[in-house]
Amino acid sequence: MLAAEYVIGAGIEVSTGKAPAPGPGEVQIAVAFTGICGTDLHIAHGAMDERTGPRRVIGHEMAGTVAALGDGVGEFAVGDAVTVMPLLWCGTCPTCLAGNSHICENLTFVGIDSPGALQERWNVPAHIVVPLPAGMSLRDAALVEPVAVAHHDVTRGRLAAGEQVAVVGGGPVGLLIAAVAAERGADVVVIEPDSYRRGVIGDLGFATLDPANDDVAARIAERSGGAGIDVAFEVSGSQPGLTTALAVLRPRGRLVAVGIHTALREVDLKRIFWRELEVLGARVYDRNDYDAAVALIANGHIPVEAIISEVVPLAQAPQAFETLSRGGSVMKVLVDCREANA
Amino acid sequence: MLAAEYVIGAGIEVSTGKAPAPGPGEVQIAVAFTGICGTDLHIAHGAMDERTGPRRVIGHEMAGTVAALGDGVGEFAVGDAVTVMPLLWCGTCPTCLAGNSHICENLTFVGIDSPGALQERWNVPAHIVVPLPAGMSLRDAALVEPVAVAHHDVTRGRLAAGEQVAVVGGGPVGLLIAAVAAERGADVVVIEPDSYRRGVIGDLGFATLDPANDDVAARIAERSGGAGIDVAFEVSGSQPGLTTALAVLRPRGRLVAVGIHTALREVDLKRIFWRELEVLGARVYDRNDYDAAVALIANGHIPVEAIISEVVPLAQAPQAFETLSRGGSVMKVLVDCREANA
Repeated sequence: MLAAEYVIGAGIEVSTGKAPAPGPGEVQIAVAFTGICGTDLHIAHGAMDERTGPRRVIGHEMAGTVAALGDGVGEFAVGDAVTVMPLLWCGTCPTCLAGNSHICENLTFVGIDSPGALQERWNVPAHIVVPLPAGMSLRDAALVEPVAVAHHDVTRGRLAAGEQVAVVGGGPVGLLIAAVAAERGADVVVIEPDSYRRGVIGDLGFATLDPANDDVAARIAERSGGAGIDVAFEVSGSQPGLTTALAVLRPRGRLVAVGIHTALREVDLKRIFWRELEVLGARVYDRNDYDAAVALIANGHIPVEAIISEVVPLAQAPQAFETLSRGGSVMKVLVDCREANA
Repeated sequence: MLAAEYVIGAGIEVSTGKAPAPGPGEVQIAVAFTGICGTDLHIAHGAMDERTGPRRVIGHEMAGTVAALGDGVGEFAVGDAVTVMPLLWCGTCPTCLAGNSHICENLTFVGIDSPGALQERWNVPAHIVVPLPAGMSLRDAALVEPVAVAHHDVTRGRLAAGEQVAVVGGGPVGLLIAAVAAERGADVVVIEPDSYRRGVIGDLGFATLDPANDDVAARIAERSGGAGIDVAFEVSGSQPGLTTALAVLRPRGRLVAVGIHTALREVDLKRIFWRELEVLGARVYDRNDYDAAVALIANGHIPVEAIISEVVPLAQAPQAFETLSRGGSVMKVLVDCREANA
């Protein structure tokens, strides 16, 4: 079978091999589609070598069908449509014991710390396999994982219907947050410097602002009757994005920190104090988010066509990583891992 | 009567004048004791001239007795023991309309933006006068305002019994937060570099750490069984204090931002994201905090003797400001504003 591996010093390589049989308690999945996310790009650029080791099949946004069952797996049948929640927690650290196993202190992220979904056959523990509704498009279902991220972020922000939302950063996760927030009845504006992305998001009916050319403060004041934003999602991972997200909030507004900031950031703590703002870190998801994400896609609340820019065969995964690394006119790229198409 | 005024270019001056009669809706209070707080020191150092104007009687932590009633005031009688909640809100801005009038966008802070309590007689609107229980010491009651701050901070942190608390900064507000948190059943450690303040706090039975000489991370790990702190209160207003407060938190821990940071601060946003931390700004108080503060003092839960370092007569207020500005072996200084003692 084919697999796309990250290899230290070489980037993404396509290899061929034999699919091992599923072990006890494992499900073997015939992977249909796997999405490439920002974390995968970081890995490909060598930023996470201490986690991947010298070579690793990566990928963690996927959908497929059950191909074989290991000993002791009774809850799935061959042919079932499934996705995977790629978290393995220890169950014994203080964070797990406090009920927050999704941010377990010894978390294994499947597809980073252990082999991932950029291969034709993938063996995973049955307890992290999530069933999909009959008839759901596997292409759409490859978005369950990032939709679960967005659902977790929106839930963490305690977003209520009628609230004013600003999403700072209009990539795939920002757009998904906008979609989930809109489904909850929020009034959403997306702040994004890239004109292609603003175009995609604007075509879906969302308000957009260009931080380079629009008077963001004035436009936010107009939108909110002078009150300011209830919940801002910082998805850019950048200093200007963070500064903007804090600046647009009303008193007692909430900032959900979604983007990964690799350097220390300058923050106006006096503003947080003076306006009694909240900053809430939001990472990955739990099973409730996963189930909600499946339902959001199944019920047509996610603009899948706008998010999926391109689908490439597994054999061309290295080129897809190169395209994404160049940035530009692209949102999400899926890799078609089906044997007939790979 | 005597009054202590801040005068631009001159600092704190004692003046004599005639007490005006209370206007309609006002109560005239015979001030008994007025505390000097950090904000008063900032004013005295010229940091808030745009709010005080060229000269202003300052002071907002006080207790006294009703001396006279303006027209239309029926809810108080001459001789009643009272304190004042020194906030006047507009009632019409979006923040007031959202129910957060304590952080009104047009807030008048009495004693900064309008005349304060460092005088023998003080006229204030009746609706911000708060009754005190019969028999309560007016000296103790001068601490109601800072205790209300501490109660607001602890409430904002959603502190629950049995939780691990770190207070970063052991001045009067930090010590009051520790006392209120302990009354709620929390296990408290105070992190403070000044040895005098650590001594005062340690003598009250609180654990203390010296950030310059103790291994804070190791000691916090010991205290919490390796889990980390549930709620950290950042009261220092300093970069090292902020960094420490974020570092000691467990995953999903809460940082309550109490201290005033006059410069931008470096913050590890990735840590906030990775551990799903919360940062909660907390400013002043509302009437619930005030009523709770009165009860906390009346019921003996506040170590008033440890907090009140000194009581000086009103005529010596300028010297008291000088003593406090030098720092050193002092917590809270009260000014005795009673006519017989001024």
